[in-house]
Amino acid sequence: MSTTATIERPLISTEELLKNWQGHRNLTRKVIEVFPEKDLFNFSVGGMRPFAELCKEMITVSGGGLKQIVTGNIEAFEDAMPEIKEKADLLQAWDEASNQIDIYFPQISAAKFHEEINLFGAYKFPAIENIQYFIDNEIHHRAQGYVYLRALGIEPPFFWDRG
Amino acid sequence: MSTTATIERPLISTEELLKNWQGHRNLTRKVIEVFPEKDLFNFSVGGMRPFAELCKEMITVSGGGLKQIVTGNIEAFEDAMPEIKEKADLLQAWDEASNQIDIYFPQISAAKFHEEINLFGAYKFPAIENIQYFIDNEIHHRAQGYVYLRALGIEPPFFWDRG
Repeated sequence: MSTTATIERPLISTEELLKNWQGHRNLTRKVIEVFPEKDLFNFSVGGMRPFAELCKEMITVSGGGLKQIVTGNIEAFEDAMPEIKEKADLLQAWDEASNQIDIYFPQISAAKFHEEINLFGAYKFPAIENIQYFIDNEIHHRAQGYVYLRALGIEPPFFWDRG
Repeated sequence: MSTTATIERPLISTEELLKNWQGHRNLTRKVIEVFPEKDLFNFSVGGMRPFAELCKEMITVSGGGLKQIVTGNIEAFEDAMPEIKEKADLLQAWDEASNQIDIYFPQISAAKFHEEINLFGAYKFPAIENIQYFIDNEIHHRAQGYVYLRALGIEPPFFWDRG
């Protein structure tokens, strides 16, 4: 559909959304790095999951979810969750998911962002809402890692340090 | 500037951003509600601030920050922080900030979202980046409230419950 229209800069462009997301991912990576190895996999507060488990969820949701949006190949959440038992492997999986996001995100067309997809066979929303949920979910779980670090007497990275 | 262009639905419209933000605010309100009165103002983990203090920051940042964007009247952060000592007053201040957001947000023009503003005399970024930061900051601090609740043995609201 072509017509005469005022061209306005969008509120948030796809490039800006991706940059913001990867900035958040950089920060989450720093939080992983600052955790002592054993606490990353064992420590938690109030019976919650240890931070490594939260990160495995983020990796599955983000890298894996975006791949599903682009390929249309839906996989159940449990089947997509990686087995990780060491910090070095968690950081590597984190970086691989970040690379996947850089590859897959630009392949989503403007129209496709608004198409519904039944992600992991369970979350049926427009792609952009699913992606926004991935990012919000990462901020949410990362913040829980901040509390774990404080409870361990460790200073977490600054919230604004996304470089 | 007018020209022939393909009209595409934006990635995220201003209405969608506002709706998403108010959904997050609804959830944060539920987290405040579920806190026992004394724990809201006194309990914390690892020497962090109690949840009421985090909420007062969110109220100042969000309602107050948006007012600064619209009016251009810059106020220092410390001067904008409310004195609140009871849960009922915190909920009332929360609702007032939500109403302020509903009033001020639609007054921001498409161009103004991309203009830099030195918010609270300290955070000089385009308005849209400041607003995105408000929302991310709310998700971050609310998640810390989730951990406090778990540490108190209290079930927090579901993360997706934004109604």
